[in-house]
Amino acid sequence: MNAYDQLSQRFDKISQLQGAQAVLHWDMQTQMPRGGAEARGGQLGALETLGHDLMTDPRVADWLDTAEANPPENLWERANLREMRRQWRHANAVESRLVEALAVAGTRCGQVWQTARPVNDFKSYEPSQAEVFALVREIAAQKAAAFGCSPYDALIDQFEPGMGAARIDEVFAPLRARIPTLIDEVLGRTSPLGPQTGGIFPIERQKALGLRVMTAMGFDFDRGRLDISSHPFCGGVPDDVRMTTRYRSDSWLPAFQGIVHETGHGLYEQGLPAKWRHQPVGEARSMGVHESQSLFWEMQVARSKPFLQWLRPHVATELGVEATVEDLYRRATAVKRGLIRVDADEVTYPAHVLMRFELEQKLVAGELRVADLPEAWREGMTRYLGVAPDTDRDGCMQDIHWTDGAVGYFPSYTLGAMIAAQLASAMRDSDFDLDGHAARGDLEPVRAWLLEKIHAQASVVETDDLIVAATGRPLSAATYLAHLEARYLG
Amino acid sequence: MNAYDQLSQRFDKISQLQGAQAVLHWDMQTQMPRGGAEARGGQLGALETLGHDLMTDPRVADWLDTAEANPPENLWERANLREMRRQWRHANAVESRLVEALAVAGTRCGQVWQTARPVNDFKSYEPSQAEVFALVREIAAQKAAAFGCSPYDALIDQFEPGMGAARIDEVFAPLRARIPTLIDEVLGRTSPLGPQTGGIFPIERQKALGLRVMTAMGFDFDRGRLDISSHPFCGGVPDDVRMTTRYRSDSWLPAFQGIVHETGHGLYEQGLPAKWRHQPVGEARSMGVHESQSLFWEMQVARSKPFLQWLRPHVATELGVEATVEDLYRRATAVKRGLIRVDADEVTYPAHVLMRFELEQKLVAGELRVADLPEAWREGMTRYLGVAPDTDRDGCMQDIHWTDGAVGYFPSYTLGAMIAAQLASAMRDSDFDLDGHAARGDLEPVRAWLLEKIHAQASVVETDDLIVAATGRPLSAATYLAHLEARYLG
Repeated sequence: MNAYDQLSQRFDKISQLQGAQAVLHWDMQTQMPRGGAEARGGQLGALETLGHDLMTDPRVADWLDTAEANPPENLWERANLREMRRQWRHANAVESRLVEALAVAGTRCGQVWQTARPVNDFKSYEPSQAEVFALVREIAAQKAAAFGCSPYDALIDQFEPGMGAARIDEVFAPLRARIPTLIDEVLGRTSPLGPQTGGIFPIERQKALGLRVMTAMGFDFDRGRLDISSHPFCGGVPDDVRMTTRYRSDSWLPAFQGIVHETGHGLYEQGLPAKWRHQPVGEARSMGVHESQSLFWEMQVARSKPFLQWLRPHVATELGVEATVEDLYRRATAVKRGLIRVDADEVTYPAHVLMRFELEQKLVAGELRVADLPEAWREGMTRYLGVAPDTDRDGCMQDIHWTDGAVGYFPSYTLGAMIAAQLASAMRDSDFDLDGHAARGDLEPVRAWLLEKIHAQASVVETDDLIVAATGRPLSAATYLAHLEARYLG
Repeated sequence: MNAYDQLSQRFDKISQLQGAQAVLHWDMQTQMPRGGAEARGGQLGALETLGHDLMTDPRVADWLDTAEANPPENLWERANLREMRRQWRHANAVESRLVEALAVAGTRCGQVWQTARPVNDFKSYEPSQAEVFALVREIAAQKAAAFGCSPYDALIDQFEPGMGAARIDEVFAPLRARIPTLIDEVLGRTSPLGPQTGGIFPIERQKALGLRVMTAMGFDFDRGRLDISSHPFCGGVPDDVRMTTRYRSDSWLPAFQGIVHETGHGLYEQGLPAKWRHQPVGEARSMGVHESQSLFWEMQVARSKPFLQWLRPHVATELGVEATVEDLYRRATAVKRGLIRVDADEVTYPAHVLMRFELEQKLVAGELRVADLPEAWREGMTRYLGVAPDTDRDGCMQDIHWTDGAVGYFPSYTLGAMIAAQLASAMRDSDFDLDGHAARGDLEPVRAWLLEKIHAQASVVETDDLIVAATGRPLSAATYLAHLEARYLG
């Protein structure tokens, strides 16, 4: 077997281990009884270690060198080799003891967070979170040395390959300049009308509505399912997608939008090329591109008037809600200054991300200590959003990302929103009748468009090239801001 | 770290991999969408291979030799070392290529079986099953050479350590002599009254009844759950037991008895000593002992009049069934000559096992070809049970065990029934008021008895010693036959 084939076989096995972990993670969130937590931690830890061992096996380094000296001619194989090297670099740049220490510290911090957040106990959370950041900084330093970049860039690279902080800073600059004033202007014009509450919307009926929209979007239920978890996510593997949502019996819009969002992720996974299953080149391009798929459906489609026109009778049938399209639209596009990122609308969401992006850089650079985070949080929220939390529960303890060391991830949310806006704009520019399809609930052609331009491309090209090829222009905030201005100030 | 500690760490990791496999198996049977089958096969295959690699690592052999040269003083650690060696021998006696070939052939045969059985197509099933037996024979031969025993003994040893065919033959001899005539005598006396059918028993109500008996038996729902699958089983890991059952809406007794049965398995797993979690000595003693726990509850307790006396009002409340204890007892202890093992009652069940035990030995010895199995099956069924199948679907294709090469397993069912009878008898002999507890539904003391004598002992002693210690006498058919005669001819 030649070196490339050896690599292909090795990465296939690593991918199978990751697939097993993904299903076990889903099970942990949706099925596992409480008492199973310790055993599950042991199972996931063993799989993680074995995957790491497979990746850091010295033979892999040799195979990579040999294959790169005589690269395959096929475009996809060549890209596969590039992505193998990328994954290998991340795994091999760091001492195993640090990876293991972070896994342990991250689990502990997550546990502390679970109990400390509800009672707003920053004091007991702070040492665990500080320990996690200390390890993250060590890991970032080792990766930075190996990659020849800044420590924070090395962290971002796990989620947005090839996209450093300087580049993100540049594409975020127009948002930083415009979002705070845009929020003021939007709130000066509209009378907020939030999701309908106070009714009683049985979970089974909400689920039926969700399944209806999933079906319209083209989700393949032979290769996926929808369940309930306290934190919605889309997990599993491409041929076995595990989506979750959560329902509130007094309000239907949040779960509905959540299902549309996760289905966007699910369609991306299901649309990845079967030919390249279990190979690095066959994986989703980046977290930002992934988020572009969920946000395209949630923001660009499901909050649009044409879509709500299609949705109206279904909401009436399934939930007994009689509302005009205008009512639905006002509820779906309500804007308010809120403290919680995951509850934010599309106008205020970037403010949350811009602040976290700023704080992350300081935390990684050592310019900000975790102990000083509550104060920095209040200052940042005030500056970007004009509100500040009274409690740390609604402040710096609101998110779970940092607890297990997922630092460098937050920018992906807003990169995704930007890409989503460019995708919608590109469809309209190319005479693709997005609004007509949405109004008829005829979403299959929309999925087919995304399948061709994004899903089927997997990781064959770099993110920037993928965006240019799909949307006709490089990544920038312009289209996203234009979309927000048109929808909220138009 | 000394050799024993190295081993302990290694077997812990292997156990975690097996735990992950167990949860993924459960998921496959209860949650996974159809399209996920191939990915799941890949995940399970990767975990299996990695586990095998961990076990066949040459360092493990060295550690075993070193540790055995200077064995630990602690009884449990010494037993742990013995069980490590036992597992190691099974993994290392066979070439990896054979293990992998059997995994592939077994999966294929299982798939063929799934489609061939319903249409009674022995012709298309025969080559795959023959391939599986050919591989099983090769594996048995390699193990036999390594262990210095017969090939069939080597297979049995996977399920019943230390229990060869000669020993089983000896303890089965009284059954072979008595079961056929016992069946005749029982059927000559009783008018069969099968499970009640024709009613409508909503699944939710049946489940409520099942949860009620599980709770009474002391199943810990913080460390386990009950779901639905087409083939009921008890899987998962000790702190996360995954039980399944299947419901028929026209009959409640089969699912109820099935739940009691699987709960017996579940209690054993949950009762294994937490101190020895993830170590070989902390695992269940054998398949026969495992089956003794399910059959103790299903046969000795749940088919007894005192238990049915407790159950009667619950059946009335949950299912609206008004029946006398006598009616319930006649239904629960109905005997008939049936073709299907899994539907058999406790009087005819041993006949199925005795025949399979005979056929397995001939298949492994090469004295019987798979092609000749249908004829041998009809002959055997006639001899042991007095009925023969018209179709292979109800004959040699009825079970799934042989499709993936689980040869040597069938005797464990009847060994379990024998141990269960001895356990019940030992309780009564020791003035433990089994019937009184059953009549009050006060089952916690019963579980505590089993916990002390069986569950908490895990694999610290060999099966024979465990049985003698728990029941006061060596394994024999006498108590089991006495139980059958008392219940069915008394």
